[in-house]
Amino acid sequence: MDVFEVAERIKELDANAQKAMGEHLNSLTKPRGSLGRLEELAIQLAGITGSTSPVIDPAVVIVMAGDHGVTAEGVSAFPAEVTPQMVHNFIAGGAAINVLSKAAQATVKIVDVGINTDFKLTGLISRKVRRGTNNMAKGPAMTVEEALAAMRVGMSVALATIEDGAKLLALGEMGIGNTTASSALVAVIGQVPVDQVVGFGTGISSSTRMRKVEIIEKAIAVNSPNPNNYVEVLAKVGGLEIAGLAGVVLQAAALRIPVLVDGFISAAAALVAVKIAPLAARYLIGSHESVEQGHRIVNELLGIKPLLQMNLRLGEGSGAALALPIVRAASCIPREMATFAQAQVAGSLDGTVK
Amino acid sequence: MDVFEVAERIKELDANAQKAMGEHLNSLTKPRGSLGRLEELAIQLAGITGSTSPVIDPAVVIVMAGDHGVTAEGVSAFPAEVTPQMVHNFIAGGAAINVLSKAAQATVKIVDVGINTDFKLTGLISRKVRRGTNNMAKGPAMTVEEALAAMRVGMSVALATIEDGAKLLALGEMGIGNTTASSALVAVIGQVPVDQVVGFGTGISSSTRMRKVEIIEKAIAVNSPNPNNYVEVLAKVGGLEIAGLAGVVLQAAALRIPVLVDGFISAAAALVAVKIAPLAARYLIGSHESVEQGHRIVNELLGIKPLLQMNLRLGEGSGAALALPIVRAASCIPREMATFAQAQVAGSLDGTVK
Repeated sequence: MDVFEVAERIKELDANAQKAMGEHLNSLTKPRGSLGRLEELAIQLAGITGSTSPVIDPAVVIVMAGDHGVTAEGVSAFPAEVTPQMVHNFIAGGAAINVLSKAAQATVKIVDVGINTDFKLTGLISRKVRRGTNNMAKGPAMTVEEALAAMRVGMSVALATIEDGAKLLALGEMGIGNTTASSALVAVIGQVPVDQVVGFGTGISSSTRMRKVEIIEKAIAVNSPNPNNYVEVLAKVGGLEIAGLAGVVLQAAALRIPVLVDGFISAAAALVAVKIAPLAARYLIGSHESVEQGHRIVNELLGIKPLLQMNLRLGEGSGAALALPIVRAASCIPREMATFAQAQVAGSLDGTVK
Repeated sequence: MDVFEVAERIKELDANAQKAMGEHLNSLTKPRGSLGRLEELAIQLAGITGSTSPVIDPAVVIVMAGDHGVTAEGVSAFPAEVTPQMVHNFIAGGAAINVLSKAAQATVKIVDVGINTDFKLTGLISRKVRRGTNNMAKGPAMTVEEALAAMRVGMSVALATIEDGAKLLALGEMGIGNTTASSALVAVIGQVPVDQVVGFGTGISSSTRMRKVEIIEKAIAVNSPNPNNYVEVLAKVGGLEIAGLAGVVLQAAALRIPVLVDGFISAAAALVAVKIAPLAARYLIGSHESVEQGHRIVNELLGIKPLLQMNLRLGEGSGAALALPIVRAASCIPREMATFAQAQVAGSLDGTVK
């Protein structure tokens, strides 16, 4: 289906279900509001799913992987061949996202939406749009049609996953160079100075970081993307896996499935989706705020309050997997707790059930 | 065993295991340090357990319940009979701690260390030291011998739980009035003004809060506990379940088992344990920082950095159960992730494995 058709299907949250959830939470055997953000999450889940008994399982982490031509400029601490090497590691189950997803009782799907390597790897979902992007410091990373194709990959993987029963999708990614693309995207779309959104990626030095800022500024100058044409920005200074994740967000939101956002890169992808379809923001749950300084800025642009502050800077979906049990807890509270009436517990002394 | 004998058995963390864990974490397929606080937690677990493959399961939440004579002064939003009612709810599985523990794959033990009700309740561990405390606004809450007996209850329940295989204990509590006792304890032991440590408990009004401050100041004046005699403070202005939890902390630390602290009350109990045996602090993991304003102060006194900020104010062990999957994730990372060598992934470009 067309990206914009799906975007148009995204609706407001179900206000009746949210109201009913609020009332239900107040009837449970706990002081009113005492579960804090867990109650806010439960209300959001009610709004998303339309149910006061929201279920988030099975939960699936969708890891989109792609390569970045801009790595030729020396913007990353790791060589570009780490992208395919890590894909092998994902498929073998040895990466952080595998371990954290297993611990969080989620499954992981790995999607090649644009890695610069040909794989024969059972378990890898091969939906390569092209072999990596071009070097955005010298011209557009890809064409608008390619960006749309990558978004459609995300949409179709999300659709298939949801049709298979998934009740929550978490965003993950792999692509050496993708904090550079994400910084460029956020700087242009969010109209924020490049220097404010560029961090230290997976561990670059201060001088490499300065170079990264310069390369991004050059890429923006060379391509002069129209900041109000979000797909054009994605094509010119984005990435294939970022486009794929934007497609995942749109498809999940259109189908009223909550989306657990991970770090800076997945948040940048979510920002593209939200710019295309502002109501998509209602379906996002922010898992954490990473060390990457642009992440705080994107979270603010998205209006999401991250659940965790754990100084993570790994990506892959690791923060989303780590936060998933909290979202599950929020879904279990309304389904499994007893009410004051059921448990024959007295209310508070001021006459209300506090 | 005697409280002080157990306290003397608490040793420093295993520095060799911590160093080995740090090196192992750096060999795993992720940028060095990129899992942030999860890596700090893994190093702490290594120090506690002496192993670079720490295991935290089975994890058990020990909920100590007791009543407080000071509720006669009208310091709580809920009537005192809610303590036994909630114990029924715990045993029936309908409370927040049941739901959150189940979601976190932990089991719950409920211990009556001093509820003012006689129960015939299968599943309740009956270790009543006395039927509730006396009203501390009029004299000592209990005798020093009773406080020590309640601590021994905690020690013996912890010992039995660990002998049954538990690899992590989480602290939980129930006792209407126990934020009042905890505030008094922290004010005296931490030598902090009462007004700074008193919050809104489970939801009292501003005027009730002012009354609560006055009652605590009166209780301290009436009893004039010696702030350097921690068991005396516990006896005069503490509570039976608080003493029980202090015993749990001492026993777990002596047996090198990590202790996941919950909210303000369990942190106050941990503070008593740490004052008696300062090395016990090394075995504590702070789960969250609650809305209760004294909680931040106790966390600082304990030197623990809470994992979550979720605006919780429920107690029962709810925050500890919510944070448990994060601790589990920290234990899984070193056990299950592949190394750079195993996965044949390239290191970072500056020649080190970043």
